Amino acid sequence: MDHFKELKVFPLLKDIKDEELKELDLLLKENKFNKGDNIITEGDEGNVMYVLIKGSVDIIKTTIYGDKFVCATLDDSMHPIFGEMALLDNDKRSATVTAKTECNTLSIDTKSFNEYIDKYPRAGVSLLKLMNLNLIRNIRVENENLKLVYQALIEEIESN
Amino acid sequence: MDHFKELKVFPLLKDIKDEELKELDLLLKENKFNKGDNIITEGDEGNVMYVLIKGSVDIIKTTIYGDKFVCATLDDSMHPIFGEMALLDNDKRSATVTAKTECNTLSIDTKSFNEYIDKYPRAGVSLLKLMNLNLIRNIRVENENLKLVYQALIEEIESN
Repeated sequence: MDHFKELKVFPLLKDIKDEELKELDLLLKENKFNKGDNIITEGDEGNVMYVLIKGSVDIIKTTIYGDKFVCATLDDSMHPIFGEMALLDNDKRSATVTAKTECNTLSIDTKSFNEYIDKYPRAGVSLLKLMNLNLIRNIRVENENLKLVYQALIEEIESN
Repeated sequence: MDHFKELKVFPLLKDIKDEELKELDLLLKENKFNKGDNIITEGDEGNVMYVLIKGSVDIIKTTIYGDKFVCATLDDSMHPIFGEMALLDNDKRSATVTAKTECNTLSIDTKSFNEYIDKYPRAGVSLLKLMNLNLIRNIRVENENLKLVYQALIEEIESN
């Protein structure tokens, strides 16, 4: 199936030449998930990155006590990507991603990704920039979360 | 001054062709800082990324109460880069970076960086991968910090 149109809407992919985007499209796998499915599971090994093209997902983390909390909800209008960390560093999944509705994703694994950006470095620059900006947005959110939890801790200590 | 040798030690830059690394070198500015100087100040505007080639730095964040805490110390043996977030998204500096000793850095701004990776996309892929892996390492550390502060909060609440 041709996902060319879905890919063209990603702001940073619009600079990739059409023929190079078509080559990328050939490497992408289409996946369908039912509501409630875990697309990614925290702590698992994994080397696949996903692009959400339809539906919405919850990003869920587990506290040290085993409690789960939703730290973000993403939907297709945001053109989100997830799983890019393990794709790049091959470390464990840092969060669970659960389908909140039926979801359609496109996915690529480390090997295909590296072969593609090696063959088409100009497209690789666009992809890596998109991934960098995604990570930066996550870090800035996490910084704010850390400040809020720290503030709650100090208030709790001072109230006693 | 020629920094070719300093750049060659970065694991992910070793794949950049020598002539392209020399072109990058021409764009890098050398900076010297005294012990105690702020190389980057949290909250400032900024579009410059730094490579630490000599010395060590503290990464310092400010809590909501204005307290400062050192969240990491980096030295030249780690070949660290910092400031890459604002280089890419032009948002405010997320932390202060203070010279813990005399420091020598190399730096590049957004405009030069984008022109370089546009001209040399293969080198751009190496640079962006290095930046991505750096961000991922920071996110994984921040995730652990968030879990620790959250744990302390729960323990504090339960002890009362």
